[in-house]
Amino acid sequence: MTLDPGFARLPSPPYVAVIFSSRRSAHDDALYQATAARMLELARQQPGFLGEESTRGADGFGITVAYWASESDALRWKGHAEHRIAQETGRARWYEHYEIRVATVTRAYGMNPQEKST
Amino acid sequence: MTLDPGFARLPSPPYVAVIFSSRRSAHDDALYQATAARMLELARQQPGFLGEESTRGADGFGITVAYWASESDALRWKGHAEHRIAQETGRARWYEHYEIRVATVTRAYGMNPQEKST
Repeated sequence: MTLDPGFARLPSPPYVAVIFSSRRSAHDDALYQATAARMLELARQQPGFLGEESTRGADGFGITVAYWASESDALRWKGHAEHRIAQETGRARWYEHYEIRVATVTRAYGMNPQEKST
Repeated sequence: MTLDPGFARLPSPPYVAVIFSSRRSAHDDALYQATAARMLELARQQPGFLGEESTRGADGFGITVAYWASESDALRWKGHAEHRIAQETGRARWYEHYEIRVATVTRAYGMNPQEKST
């Protein structure tokens, strides 16, 4: 069976989770989508990037969780030049409101029937 | 201005985040919705519950983050009798796959134009 690509495949804890909750504004959907895809592509190339899970409902409220090997890896990505430009555009145009919580994951478990069956 | 009800209003860190990522199956939507609403109502009554943010996309992938004052508060909720029945039904019928990561939030920041303007 194929693995569900929506889920990040992570090592054993500890690692860092950056939880980004946001409400989208109605502006710029095509540019927003292109920028979000580019930021994910770029994040995947950064040292310490472990994976990402992301979803947004029809009401414009979304949650993205990015996983990093360490807090310094997450902070380096926060300061990445191209990412900073995207952050500024996001604040100015794409988000009505967002909250970021940086956390250390200490325990992880789940139910994955695809892994059970292999 | 009214506050966006999608966002949890949290105290200063540290506190605990339980990140629940899931892929819904196609079964039982009405019962699932009712149970999810009941679980949120019940969670809100538990000691140490700080707030919750939740969203699900049209593809059935969702993320819910529940915030607790301490890990023992989160664990007590995990063991709550009515919640355990919901968990079992979820495993049997509502979710194709889920992952839970338990984390300690150490930093939090955001952009909330509604709070800025008050």
